[in-house]
Amino acid sequence: MQLIDGKKISLQLQEEISAEVKKIIASGGKQPHLAAVLVGNDGGSETYVAAKIKACENVGFKSTLIRHDSNVTEAELLATVNKLNADKDIDGYIVQLPLPKHITEQKIIEAVDTAKDVDGFHPINVGRMVLNLPTYISATPNGIVELIKRYKIETIGKHCVVIGRSNIVGSPMSILMAKNNVFANCTVTICHSKTKDIASFTKQADIIICALGKPEFLTADMVKQGAVVIDVGTTRVASAETKSGFKLKGDVKFEEVAPKCSYITPVPGGVGPMTIASLLMNTLLAAKKEIYR
Amino acid sequence: MQLIDGKKISLQLQEEISAEVKKIIASGGKQPHLAAVLVGNDGGSETYVAAKIKACENVGFKSTLIRHDSNVTEAELLATVNKLNADKDIDGYIVQLPLPKHITEQKIIEAVDTAKDVDGFHPINVGRMVLNLPTYISATPNGIVELIKRYKIETIGKHCVVIGRSNIVGSPMSILMAKNNVFANCTVTICHSKTKDIASFTKQADIIICALGKPEFLTADMVKQGAVVIDVGTTRVASAETKSGFKLKGDVKFEEVAPKCSYITPVPGGVGPMTIASLLMNTLLAAKKEIYR
Repeated sequence: MQLIDGKKISLQLQEEISAEVKKIIASGGKQPHLAAVLVGNDGGSETYVAAKIKACENVGFKSTLIRHDSNVTEAELLATVNKLNADKDIDGYIVQLPLPKHITEQKIIEAVDTAKDVDGFHPINVGRMVLNLPTYISATPNGIVELIKRYKIETIGKHCVVIGRSNIVGSPMSILMAKNNVFANCTVTICHSKTKDIASFTKQADIIICALGKPEFLTADMVKQGAVVIDVGTTRVASAETKSGFKLKGDVKFEEVAPKCSYITPVPGGVGPMTIASLLMNTLLAAKKEIYR
Repeated sequence: MQLIDGKKISLQLQEEISAEVKKIIASGGKQPHLAAVLVGNDGGSETYVAAKIKACENVGFKSTLIRHDSNVTEAELLATVNKLNADKDIDGYIVQLPLPKHITEQKIIEAVDTAKDVDGFHPINVGRMVLNLPTYISATPNGIVELIKRYKIETIGKHCVVIGRSNIVGSPMSILMAKNNVFANCTVTICHSKTKDIASFTKQADIIICALGKPEFLTADMVKQGAVVIDVGTTRVASAETKSGFKLKGDVKFEEVAPKCSYITPVPGGVGPMTIASLLMNTLLAAKKEIYR
């Protein structure tokens, strides 16, 4: 069994990005610039955005944080989005989700210039992914694909079972793993809340991607010997062991599943750390104008 | 075994559309208007476009056919597209594919006003389908979903195996069948040219959607008793029996598979006739501004 070390790969990616930024600047190019829009003071959002800004510093990106009160109007937020769209120095930006209930998230997402949509949430970028056109793939799926690449996990002709059909993870992963390229080409089965007997599918799987958000859902009896298991779950559960009073739990019962696996991602330290590296990769693509000219 | 009669359902849909058009006009509304752009003189394209124009007449739509020589430049074709985008009387239009090689199809597809993209080929409309937003679903997948609805085929919790991953059929069908709604909610497996032992998957399937384009690929030994089989294949094979000198062959070995099925679509007369009804449905949605305002 080999542990897939997302933390290590994420740092490695950041070093590679950092080296590329140095080259760009040395040859007279512009410093890549990521902006983040943060609405309100949600604790989780604060933490995520702070980590993104810090990662920008680490790799030599310029970063800008724009804050709005939680009572910002939709019109005001759209004005910010339009300003960011027009700002030529900014290569890409994110609007941290979730937004307050009085704002229609989808309206904000669709107002983002598709060339600066480094979160890959705009429908046009989702469509371009489906149609095999150059695009920004959103953070978690992009991170999982990168782990598969870096660990040279065999995928061609393998049976990949994805559990969960969310817009953010399950659905795009099922699409990406079936694509005709060397890091995919899997036969893909997508399971969800209406699937009868999920175990009957996971038992057949060479690769299992768990993204349903139920702690310790996947147990050893559901997994074939030698399978690759990617755990996307990150549910906070109360814990007396930690200072924060909670612990992150994956969708996989790690202790009993791991011994049967050829590869497995831990939680934390697996898929999680990859999301920030993904965002940085997309921002670099934006700065280099590799997706849109 | 019940035969799924696409011809009958297509006519039924056209009658329903026709009745709605009469109502719209009776209440002082505008007659729905579909335009078609035809480049060159390809026999297949001529036939398809003629059938679409005729169907418009049948249901009371206004239709406009715009022809270009096969040596039309990309700029000229883009000018036509822009003219159609600006024409307020035209609710929706299609650019018949394939286009001559000197024209970049994707550029034309992306120039179509997304609100008039009744073929559903624009990346934004593909993305909106993935994200469960109102959209135009392209003709073949839309037609298959309609057949499933009209025949009240049970789908919830069923295992649907899709063979083929084309942008036009296999990929969107795999996405649509997994959606969280009463005409879908299947566990979906997508098989393709890199799948090892396709039969091992089809044998488990409650619903099989064959869209790989290999005549008589699916044989009786690959199908479970009581399965639903949807045959999207339409390969022209030489035949001495017909005046035209060819016959349409599906992907399913119909004679031997049909007796095992609960439902099956014939070729011709199954999925094929539904594509035009789909286009008309999308045009009506466009005229009623139900997708975009």
